[in-house]
Amino acid sequence: MLKFIDEDFLLKNETAKILYDNYASKLPIIDYHCHISPKEIAENKSYRNITELWLGGDHYKWRAMRSCGISEELITGNASDYEKFRAYAGCMPKLIGNPLYHWSHLELIRYFGYTGVLNADTCDKVWNLCNEKLTLPEMSAKNIVKNSGVEILCTTDDPIDDLRYHSEIANDKNFGVKVLPAFRPDKGLKIYLDGYRKYIDQLSEASGVEIKDFATLKQAYINRLDFFEKAGCKTADHGLDYVPCLLPKNEKELDVIFRTAYENDGNASKEDADKFITAMLIFFAKEYTKRHFVMQIHYGVLRNPNSVWYKKLGADTGFDMIGNSRNSVSALASLFDRMTMNDGLPRCVIYPIDPNENAAVATLLGSYQCDSEGGMPRLMQGSAWWFNDNLTGMRAQMITLANLSSFGNFLGMLTDSRSFISYPRHEYFRRILCNLVGEWVENGEFPYDIEAIANIVIDICYNNTKNYFGF
Amino acid sequence: MLKFIDEDFLLKNETAKILYDNYASKLPIIDYHCHISPKEIAENKSYRNITELWLGGDHYKWRAMRSCGISEELITGNASDYEKFRAYAGCMPKLIGNPLYHWSHLELIRYFGYTGVLNADTCDKVWNLCNEKLTLPEMSAKNIVKNSGVEILCTTDDPIDDLRYHSEIANDKNFGVKVLPAFRPDKGLKIYLDGYRKYIDQLSEASGVEIKDFATLKQAYINRLDFFEKAGCKTADHGLDYVPCLLPKNEKELDVIFRTAYENDGNASKEDADKFITAMLIFFAKEYTKRHFVMQIHYGVLRNPNSVWYKKLGADTGFDMIGNSRNSVSALASLFDRMTMNDGLPRCVIYPIDPNENAAVATLLGSYQCDSEGGMPRLMQGSAWWFNDNLTGMRAQMITLANLSSFGNFLGMLTDSRSFISYPRHEYFRRILCNLVGEWVENGEFPYDIEAIANIVIDICYNNTKNYFGF
Amino acid sequence: MLKFIDEDFLLKNETAKILYDNYASKLPIIDYHCHISPKEIAENKSYRNITELWLGGDHYKWRAMRSCGISEELITGNASDYEKFRAYAGCMPKLIGNPLYHWSHLELIRYFGYTGVLNADTCDKVWNLCNEKLTLPEMSAKNIVKNSGVEILCTTDDPIDDLRYHSEIANDKNFGVKVLPAFRPDKGLKIYLDGYRKYIDQLSEASGVEIKDFATLKQAYINRLDFFEKAGCKTADHGLDYVPCLLPKNEKELDVIFRTAYENDGNASKEDADKFITAMLIFFAKEYTKRHFVMQIHYGVLRNPNSVWYKKLGADTGFDMIGNSRNSVSALASLFDRMTMNDGLPRCVIYPIDPNENAAVATLLGSYQCDSEGGMPRLMQGSAWWFNDNLTGMRAQMITLANLSSFGNFLGMLTDSRSFISYPRHEYFRRILCNLVGEWVENGEFPYDIEAIANIVIDICYNNTKNYFGF
Repeated sequence: MLKFIDEDFLLKNETAKILYDNYASKLPIIDYHCHISPKEIAENKSYRNITELWLGGDHYKWRAMRSCGISEELITGNASDYEKFRAYAGCMPKLIGNPLYHWSHLELIRYFGYTGVLNADTCDKVWNLCNEKLTLPEMSAKNIVKNSGVEILCTTDDPIDDLRYHSEIANDKNFGVKVLPAFRPDKGLKIYLDGYRKYIDQLSEASGVEIKDFATLKQAYINRLDFFEKAGCKTADHGLDYVPCLLPKNEKELDVIFRTAYENDGNASKEDADKFITAMLIFFAKEYTKRHFVMQIHYGVLRNPNSVWYKKLGADTGFDMIGNSRNSVSALASLFDRMTMNDGLPRCVIYPIDPNENAAVATLLGSYQCDSEGGMPRLMQGSAWWFNDNLTGMRAQMITLANLSSFGNFLGMLTDSRSFISYPRHEYFRRILCNLVGEWVENGEFPYDIEAIANIVIDICYNNTKNYFGF
Repeated sequence: MLKFIDEDFLLKNETAKILYDNYASKLPIIDYHCHISPKEIAENKSYRNITELWLGGDHYKWRAMRSCGISEELITGNASDYEKFRAYAGCMPKLIGNPLYHWSHLELIRYFGYTGVLNADTCDKVWNLCNEKLTLPEMSAKNIVKNSGVEILCTTDDPIDDLRYHSEIANDKNFGVKVLPAFRPDKGLKIYLDGYRKYIDQLSEASGVEIKDFATLKQAYINRLDFFEKAGCKTADHGLDYVPCLLPKNEKELDVIFRTAYENDGNASKEDADKFITAMLIFFAKEYTKRHFVMQIHYGVLRNPNSVWYKKLGADTGFDMIGNSRNSVSALASLFDRMTMNDGLPRCVIYPIDPNENAAVATLLGSYQCDSEGGMPRLMQGSAWWFNDNLTGMRAQMITLANLSSFGNFLGMLTDSRSFISYPRHEYFRRILCNLVGEWVENGEFPYDIEAIANIVIDICYNNTKNYFGF
Repeated sequence: MLKFIDEDFLLKNETAKILYDNYASKLPIIDYHCHISPKEIAENKSYRNITELWLGGDHYKWRAMRSCGISEELITGNASDYEKFRAYAGCMPKLIGNPLYHWSHLELIRYFGYTGVLNADTCDKVWNLCNEKLTLPEMSAKNIVKNSGVEILCTTDDPIDDLRYHSEIANDKNFGVKVLPAFRPDKGLKIYLDGYRKYIDQLSEASGVEIKDFATLKQAYINRLDFFEKAGCKTADHGLDYVPCLLPKNEKELDVIFRTAYENDGNASKEDADKFITAMLIFFAKEYTKRHFVMQIHYGVLRNPNSVWYKKLGADTGFDMIGNSRNSVSALASLFDRMTMNDGLPRCVIYPIDPNENAAVATLLGSYQCDSEGGMPRLMQGSAWWFNDNLTGMRAQMITLANLSSFGNFLGMLTDSRSFISYPRHEYFRRILCNLVGEWVENGEFPYDIEAIANIVIDICYNNTKNYFGF
């Protein structure tokens, strides 16, 4: 029997231990997609207590607490920080088998040196221990990131962002961690939502382009892309409820769709929005190709399905779910086909939220790899994402990718997190990876050649990302 | 090598054995959804032979026999009981890996004391042994249920049912097992089927309400709900081919839809039926909420797809299949959203038939848990159902639920069976559960704390169901 | 730790080793669906080097190379044979976990006696060794097939084919392997594609029937079916992008659809094509039933989604992917329902390409088995196909089939390959099968009765196919 989260955690064979201990555990982290706040890094934020750090904005934990029947008062409500922490601690045993159970304990071990169990009984001990630790300088945002072994991280930024915090961070020569912006133009694509006019006005101002039709809209984005590129940006990210592929007749139709949406302050029809988004994705892809940006596509989430609580708490508060992305794989194929015709298919990482689409996406990759640059595939499937970011989900994604594509080129882990102490998710991933590779070897499915398998692990944990993004 | 179905069956680690032997195996059974006949309990039915008990109405077995190329004469036809049993026994080796292989042998061990193998060679021995045993008083319906450790069971009953057998059973003070009705209004929702007029007339009579429009229809159901509630009913069940969510304009439209269906004796269009069912589900949900009934939703089965054999044998004869429920998860989200707006989202257990929907359903739960009553989640996913009720299906459902929700609150097993000797399916489930929990512990993924994990197992096998349904 | 691909490859328990060594490994191969060229068999083709044999037409390998970022010049381009082989060898370590890694090494062991590892370092050694071996007579097409233990193989042939090579092969009394044609009428069903008129003219000529309407079209096919039947054909295969089930009003409508497509040289609308294909499938099924042909249905592939490369390289060049077959299972149900009404549901093997459909297909089978002939099921699910033909895919398909149907009747493996040295895929399958059966036994889920489990393995590897197809 293995001890609870000891040094051999998740490493069930000897080869896995060698791979993790001698190679994977020693590599720096490149967190190529996350949601942490550049402002909080720049200001080197510190935390008043473990509740602020853990439960201040982590909708994974909020959702888990609701699933344990905890009242909202103790989650996002007016209860005290201590009461909220107590409520979370009390939920822990119910979360057996949940990644939060492992993440929470890994974070307690790695950042707070607490190797015990968190539950209702130990709640006060952990509360005191963590809060004391949080007063130390090593627990400020910058120090956490640095001490976690992070070499590079990419935030998520709107095209209208002035990236001032990125430049502040870059100017701090003592920090040593590269914090790069990532271009995320989702808001400007949602011509069906209220507030579209205001957004376009802001984009006009940020870009210095008076946006009056589709051509000037594109020019405004080009200016912002140039600005992001100068700030070191290497990647762009798109979050799509589903992937549309509905080609507009011509640019005139797009002018009408755009101007109508602008005049109506959003409220575009589904058909108009699909055409607009299709055209914008093809436009952006071509621009990314020119700039050697990696395009990332996250799709399939059904967002804010509980309108009562959406009104109370807003977006990103733990109510999203795996949605209905059923035709997205064939739509992606049509989009990539168009981009190929156009010499405008950039390197691209695809993240489906429905785990049933892993296999189809893995086969999709192979249909658009021709003549990639630099000896790496053009298309990649991202690591198991969000609801799939757990032991079985990550393993299943890796096995499917290995079956259907070239696993040795896999990009490995990213946190996708809003939290400053979520880096143990890289450790979690690396342990699962080493265990899988070790298993293949010990089952006689791959030769026992330590150098060869160490290289595979090092590539997946570090080199592939560095090369693919061009960091 | 483990022996075939011995005391350690499915318990592959030491912790699992402790959990099963000391805790899970000792708990009573609450079978909160099944299809056994209250009449047969009330009349304390006994069985003329093992064919009547096993093959008289079990469409799982019929289907398996057809899949072995057995002629229908030997399944539902005129062959003798002995010939039918012989045919089933002969199929057994072909059913390697099938849950029927395990269920059949578990039933032979637990009810007949036969620990050997069933096949063509042992057929006669088993036939004689079982039939002899079936003459004993312990093998009457009531004694089987009682001796199986059942504390409470919920049957499945139409709103027009007079529940006379439930009251007869309740009056038998020696029996000691609670047999509660469950409200299953499927028939009254199918306004597209022939016979609708007759059904509504029966409902009018049963409820004492002259049904002439949507308002009186609802009143009739309210009367029947009151009647069921008085009879101890705690739950309602809905079987839906797919989940619709198409909101009617207003109650007037529903009046027209209802009256048209009544006058045409069913035959409603798909659109009208979708609107009617949507409105009725929202209405029922609100009523269940008021009464603290648990709503159960089973969906996604493609029923009676073989029309030639449907004409010969009728429904529930082993021809149903996993169907096309592709938009059901997002429709459920829309329905639950409506119910939330309406303060009418009851506690609800969801059972998808397509195992691909496990993950999406598990995420759906989390979107509607806010401010549940009594420290339990409001929404639950039911145990792997029907075609998924097997070793891999149950395990996969549990792991997905643990990854995406709070496994400690899981409701565990129900038989969903028409058979009086299907209770070893609870044993089967409990063994799989204990094995999984033991595996997590022995892999270092959860602390080795026997009290904590025993509590998880006890909750899932017994306490959660008792608390959630309010038994 | 097991050694890389040694005699116990994939056999992780003792029972598995007994089953494989004493039974499965000794059985002949019936390869009931493949794409090898009867011309190359008849001409007893030999190979100038390993590149021609391995990389000349194997789009699985091309696709894998593209996924490793290899330039097309080194795949299908003008690079030398040596350079192409070198490129493939260099990809190998990236293909860890991929079936190509195992297939390639198994082929090197079984056909070339090379038991080492293939990679950039060993490339030259393997190149020389293989090419030397390929000059020997034992490495001609006929000798490879014969020495691989093949008893019967079915090619894939268009109805207009004159089957002259099949007759040449049959006349070679020294060969000893039965090479039977399989009827594959896909081309004649695609009334939406260019070139339809020419195809129908060829069919007219081949059949001796002047095709002018739906009735004469059917007569032409009946003539060709008679011809194939005389040539020993036992099976027909249909590859469908998705399964349609749209019934035409009457034969007059079909006449119009057919004549319009003929006059327009293809270019039928989606609706017309769906009606035409539905009618043709029902017609063919009835004809197959009369002739005791086994119908095979492969569906769900999205073909040629990259139009740029489709123009350059044509079809079957490694660009296909898992597509959008979402309603195919219910469409299959409707089709089989029609065929049942018509007494025209033949024995039929179904192969979905989307692994998510395994469970639904396995339940579909059970709905149409009634009164099958000869004590075998009428409908079967085929072995995990194409993108699923790997360790996890084959195992998952077998477990699902066992859960939901009668595993003892499973038809086992076919190569579906264009390569003469792909027979180790039967070995690969048999090892996975033996391991699974051994696992069930050693877990106590099936009795340890060597004769019983050996029979199951022998049936799945050999007897079932022989009986079901009537070879």
